[in-house]
Amino acid sequence: MKNNQFGQIHISREQELLELQQIAFLDGTAPELNAPKAQLVDLLARAFAPLTTTQSGLDHRFKQLLATPNQTLYDFFHDETPLTPDIFARLSLQLLQFEEPADFALDAPLDAYPTLNLPSFDVSEFKTGNDVAHAWYQLLTTHTKNGQNYLDYLTQTGYFVPFYEKTQAPIFFNGKAQAVFDPHTLIREVVYVEAPLDTDHDGHRDLLKAEILRPAATNAGYQAPVLYTASPYNQGINDAWGDALTHQVDFPLAKKAANQLTAADVAAVDETETLPDSRIPAGQAETASEYFAEEQNYTLNDYFLSRGFAVVYASGIGTRDSDGSRDTGGPDETTSTVAIIEWLNGQRPAFTNKTDNIEIKAWWSNRHIAMTGRSYLGTLATAAATTGVDGLKTIISEAAISSWYDYYRDGGLVAAPDTFQGEDMDVLAGEVFSRRQDAGDYLNSKAMFDATLAQLAKRQDRESGDYSAYWDGRNYLNNVKNIKADIVMVHGLNDWNVKPRHVFNLWQALKAVPVAKKLILHQGQHIYINNFRSLDFTDMMNLWLSYKLFDVDNGADTQLPDVVIQDNVTPETWHTANDWQADTDTQEILQLTADNQLSSASSVTKAQQSFNDQLADAQFKDYTQHLSAWHHDLLDTDRSDNPLAGKRLTFKTAPLESDWVLDGAPQVSVKVAVNNSVGLLSFQLVDFGSAKRFNPTPTLLAKHALSGAFDWRKDDLTEFTLASEVTPFKMISKGHINLQNQQNNYQVNDLVPGEFNQFDVTLQPTYYRIPAGHQLGLVIYATDFETTIRGNQDITYTLQLDQSQLTLTRI
Amino acid sequence: MKNNQFGQIHISREQELLELQQIAFLDGTAPELNAPKAQLVDLLARAFAPLTTTQSGLDHRFKQLLATPNQTLYDFFHDETPLTPDIFARLSLQLLQFEEPADFALDAPLDAYPTLNLPSFDVSEFKTGNDVAHAWYQLLTTHTKNGQNYLDYLTQTGYFVPFYEKTQAPIFFNGKAQAVFDPHTLIREVVYVEAPLDTDHDGHRDLLKAEILRPAATNAGYQAPVLYTASPYNQGINDAWGDALTHQVDFPLAKKAANQLTAADVAAVDETETLPDSRIPAGQAETASEYFAEEQNYTLNDYFLSRGFAVVYASGIGTRDSDGSRDTGGPDETTSTVAIIEWLNGQRPAFTNKTDNIEIKAWWSNRHIAMTGRSYLGTLATAAATTGVDGLKTIISEAAISSWYDYYRDGGLVAAPDTFQGEDMDVLAGEVFSRRQDAGDYLNSKAMFDATLAQLAKRQDRESGDYSAYWDGRNYLNNVKNIKADIVMVHGLNDWNVKPRHVFNLWQALKAVPVAKKLILHQGQHIYINNFRSLDFTDMMNLWLSYKLFDVDNGADTQLPDVVIQDNVTPETWHTANDWQADTDTQEILQLTADNQLSSASSVTKAQQSFNDQLADAQFKDYTQHLSAWHHDLLDTDRSDNPLAGKRLTFKTAPLESDWVLDGAPQVSVKVAVNNSVGLLSFQLVDFGSAKRFNPTPTLLAKHALSGAFDWRKDDLTEFTLASEVTPFKMISKGHINLQNQQNNYQVNDLVPGEFNQFDVTLQPTYYRIPAGHQLGLVIYATDFETTIRGNQDITYTLQLDQSQLTLTRI
Repeated sequence: MKNNQFGQIHISREQELLELQQIAFLDGTAPELNAPKAQLVDLLARAFAPLTTTQSGLDHRFKQLLATPNQTLYDFFHDETPLTPDIFARLSLQLLQFEEPADFALDAPLDAYPTLNLPSFDVSEFKTGNDVAHAWYQLLTTHTKNGQNYLDYLTQTGYFVPFYEKTQAPIFFNGKAQAVFDPHTLIREVVYVEAPLDTDHDGHRDLLKAEILRPAATNAGYQAPVLYTASPYNQGINDAWGDALTHQVDFPLAKKAANQLTAADVAAVDETETLPDSRIPAGQAETASEYFAEEQNYTLNDYFLSRGFAVVYASGIGTRDSDGSRDTGGPDETTSTVAIIEWLNGQRPAFTNKTDNIEIKAWWSNRHIAMTGRSYLGTLATAAATTGVDGLKTIISEAAISSWYDYYRDGGLVAAPDTFQGEDMDVLAGEVFSRRQDAGDYLNSKAMFDATLAQLAKRQDRESGDYSAYWDGRNYLNNVKNIKADIVMVHGLNDWNVKPRHVFNLWQALKAVPVAKKLILHQGQHIYINNFRSLDFTDMMNLWLSYKLFDVDNGADTQLPDVVIQDNVTPETWHTANDWQADTDTQEILQLTADNQLSSASSVTKAQQSFNDQLADAQFKDYTQHLSAWHHDLLDTDRSDNPLAGKRLTFKTAPLESDWVLDGAPQVSVKVAVNNSVGLLSFQLVDFGSAKRFNPTPTLLAKHALSGAFDWRKDDLTEFTLASEVTPFKMISKGHINLQNQQNNYQVNDLVPGEFNQFDVTLQPTYYRIPAGHQLGLVIYATDFETTIRGNQDITYTLQLDQSQLTLTRI
Repeated sequence: MKNNQFGQIHISREQELLELQQIAFLDGTAPELNAPKAQLVDLLARAFAPLTTTQSGLDHRFKQLLATPNQTLYDFFHDETPLTPDIFARLSLQLLQFEEPADFALDAPLDAYPTLNLPSFDVSEFKTGNDVAHAWYQLLTTHTKNGQNYLDYLTQTGYFVPFYEKTQAPIFFNGKAQAVFDPHTLIREVVYVEAPLDTDHDGHRDLLKAEILRPAATNAGYQAPVLYTASPYNQGINDAWGDALTHQVDFPLAKKAANQLTAADVAAVDETETLPDSRIPAGQAETASEYFAEEQNYTLNDYFLSRGFAVVYASGIGTRDSDGSRDTGGPDETTSTVAIIEWLNGQRPAFTNKTDNIEIKAWWSNRHIAMTGRSYLGTLATAAATTGVDGLKTIISEAAISSWYDYYRDGGLVAAPDTFQGEDMDVLAGEVFSRRQDAGDYLNSKAMFDATLAQLAKRQDRESGDYSAYWDGRNYLNNVKNIKADIVMVHGLNDWNVKPRHVFNLWQALKAVPVAKKLILHQGQHIYINNFRSLDFTDMMNLWLSYKLFDVDNGADTQLPDVVIQDNVTPETWHTANDWQADTDTQEILQLTADNQLSSASSVTKAQQSFNDQLADAQFKDYTQHLSAWHHDLLDTDRSDNPLAGKRLTFKTAPLESDWVLDGAPQVSVKVAVNNSVGLLSFQLVDFGSAKRFNPTPTLLAKHALSGAFDWRKDDLTEFTLASEVTPFKMISKGHINLQNQQNNYQVNDLVPGEFNQFDVTLQPTYYRIPAGHQLGLVIYATDFETTIRGNQDITYTLQLDQSQLTLTRI
């Protein structure tokens, strides 16, 4: 086990004592501290108070703990031996749930601190109770073996339950809000926010359902900051319908008419429509009259629900109980998302129900709002931030789309998110049009939504794959300059659904924007990371949100590293950096050679290599149904009867003499001729070498181990672990281009059969360690069964190798 | 979706009205019923009350529902059209979360009832409010699409929350206890029960920690029945230690000395030791002084925690916070398990802590106790039942061991539960000796437990694999006659960990015992089934427990079928039966033939076939590390380069002309000679035929969809679904024998090389449908990589086919 804590802050001893008083580990306003051993007994008694109320019960616990390898804590407390760092460290490790001998040696507990990567133990001797209090403060803020700081562990055992009755305001410890609010007295209510939209064209502004969870203390005057999650999925999804809408992808690549379009020609156009007037309130209400029982919760939000935050979920236009019609990723969707924030910030009306026009204000909101969520949810957080809406102080945007073109298209090609072949803007709109699920509502919304779908199918233009004004209107990168909210971005370096380019482009664009920004890159696919053992993500976000939403002066902006990146070779290892694809990186140009090498040598001899993209019918069909088999064969250069032999070109470096760390977006430049007037190229960058790599998904370490409060919703503890078996290779990055899009993704050329042209393709960005002894490889192919349309055409591609290179940025 | 409900009971209309009053769907003691439509409005208003408190809110919900394909419920309520069965059924299906057109046709809702297998809709016209109340009663007790009855769905939305404040006693509806107790006011306390044991030989009776969750109403005089789960795992497990203790299995089968032992020679002997006196109470306490925050919960127990039941978890001797030393499956373990029941029943003392001798009674218990749990937990329930202990009214025993010999041995062989090669009684004891996890406690218990382990290693006797007095002392079947508790048995027909023989033998033995017994056989492996969509297991258990523990006269004994069996071909299909391997079954004898057929023809020609058990070293090693590859190759008769060619014999029937349903334990009789003085045989019964079979584990349908109460612990909804790809075969059953154990598993013969002997082996019992067109196969082999020791010896086995048969029982 290796711990990584970035959310633990260091404060003065005086401040530590004050905070220990505030959470009742010390009494009164100027506590008299005891002698060291007595002080430790007192602190332990308070820690164990939820579990035992008698001296005998406490003694029992002391007997279960060791002070030295041969003496229990009970016996230690009954003799005259002084408290030492060795004893305190041994006790700490036991309380932190580490086990001997697996995690630490009983006779050398202090040695385990660096091994386990625990925050260093900085008391050299215990002279006073003050020294003990300081060490105890450190213990409370140190992570247990099971992925939470010790105070959060005590919280789960009920430590803060006695606080509930008197809680009227948050309490902070080590810069982070604590669980002093009873999660079982939360008020759950529904309001309908009036958006400045009429997307269902019924002559009334769209009302949007918002589900609110707020601390009971708000009814007594406490004003809460808000974590707002905009989730189109939360009111239900239409899986069967989405499947039915999914597009065929097995047809030939079509020839496109050449054009001379410029950037201005594909710039977004204003899609604003005329708007009905806002409703005139027929009255005002202080309290809602509709409620909800269960929301589709995000466990990170759950953690904060006992810490003085309110949480709001809203699904937006076109979803169950709301009005409107959904236009995936479009300006209306963003306006719908932002309307909730405007209401929370006092700038837009909401009503208690959909008919009576009784207005209700968010009088309980402190008007400091953050957005959270992953994937489409994180995307809407990004979208909202790019409007610069007031009140939105920060977003924690996980695995978010930054441009919808980059999600469903690539280089002038229709290019699906991997594992979602055939999905597109219209399919997703159908998936989340949950008004479908109320038969009564659907009776009256069907015709309207059918029109929306028809329009989407047309505007998304699956024929060309080109960028257009439609896509430019769904490119949030255009509006990054408007962002006023500070931003935390989280993304998986193995996310081939929302690919790494999305966050990379956002990160690069944000450099010019004067907001605080943090980036966390992990080794997962399309996942949440708030339940990892090795990273204190929850603590980091608590520090961040306490700063941004409660204005707690905890230095989060400087305390948290700008960039945190999980290593892909060694589990539970997180690197810090100042940038992704940093100025200090070096460029490495690798030449493709006739003996299928990637070579940094400068002398190059003229050579060509060709491949044909067409497979036998049966093999083609088999691959369409077994994508992972195709993926494996594509990269397998050892299989003797590989059906893809001759169907792609592979180039490898010599085995590396030392580790290479790729940092950023690799670039490929190839000179290619095609025997056809249409063509596409795909590229995969590959780590070749037998190794036990990370399992693709995190391993479940402990079910239901994590919770933000006593008797409250649970989360599973997980961590990436090494697979039990070696694998021969792993894809690092990929990219695609339609050869009619030599210049960019909107200008179209004619492709002259047999004529050589140079094509430059930027692959998905990465951060990847290739261990010494491995080979870096580049696979060049055409049809990508996981991503592109699959024409199975008889097309031959010829590369002029001496004019083809791979360019990397390396640390 | 196909629903299967066995827990819905039919009562008189008068009783229905009374029960509807009790749960506040009707007012007062003699409610005035309205005209049909008004009555329906009133019932819906009450159902939706947790979500909306205004007429406008209610109207909104009525607008979301359809009364007819073209009219919303809102419009229907505002015109004069009469309520019809068609309209009520359509409304019901929408409320039950079924979707059109996927689940039902909007214009023919009544047709969906048989299709979905919903309880039949039995109102032919709505003349009165009474008719509506009856249909509403049916609706409340009918299952939704998501695996719970509609009343339980309403419960999750908060329907019973208003009851919490006044609840002092349970409320029953349709024979089942309802969630009228607030789960967040549960009292969680720890007591230490004094067992009549001193397994750690410290001169004091062992104190055993019990974790109690009881309704707050018990403090006001309510006496609660108890669901008690005895789980050795609940205080933690020693995974790493268990791995270290695991035995090597790759060594040759040893020759055993012949003996003439009789059953009497291997009968259990009394293992009772002298016992210290019970503690003399130093005082009495009404309330506990130790508490716990989180138990390792079983979701079925959670469901009942809001229904007036108390729940108790205890881990027994040798576990964290308890005294003693664990002897897997032995009499002391049973005594330890039973001690908790005796305390709950007022017949054994418990204390508030481990030192002060302050006695505390279970004054809040109604002395009606049930045991629940799966695997080792269910095993201890069975063990407790075989003592006939007072107060234990019923057990729900899932995937339970009935004899430990059948768990770790078979036919005179060491034979591991599949996937736990090398595990044995001592390994399991080490796994669950969680006293190990408190370093202070382990300081003083290490020497004692090392002795326990050493003794276990000796007594379990891995050398012979024979049955002995030791194993007979760990065979609960010996004491089935003592059982006084009614019993529900649940087992997976694909459970190769705790194999089906365990429950089969218990079921057969129970036939002579005058208790009520029910058997549920599912298609899972070693799993719980209380979250399946297609079976109302939770309702069934609620009916059962309300009857057994609350003495509610709901007829559960006759209402629930004696045997419920999940079909293995068609998902969501459950059969009922009176017996497993019933008297009415027919016997089918299949002869092994020289052309590798299983033939029912009577003419037989003399023939022999041989196989050798030894593999090339590399292949052997590969299989030891890839058990599933071995399993696949064993059954694969098509692979041309199969490494197991010549290493086993395979016999198949002709393709079946109609479905065969095997019911019970197949038997094999083979005449065999071996070229060695040691030998073993293994058998697998196989379904050969390309088909989409059930996935081996249930599919997650909806995460966190199920809960027993509002704002309470969640469970995932799951169901067995068909795999997306066809498989060529599937193992149905298996069996093993050491050829030195021709008579039984304790008497040992010398095996004369080259001499033919007849061996009879009963395979694991099954209930299996082999579809028409498939072939039934028998594979005969020796070393079982998943189960037996693996000597890789050069041994050749020769079968006299004309004297070898397979005998089946078929429905």
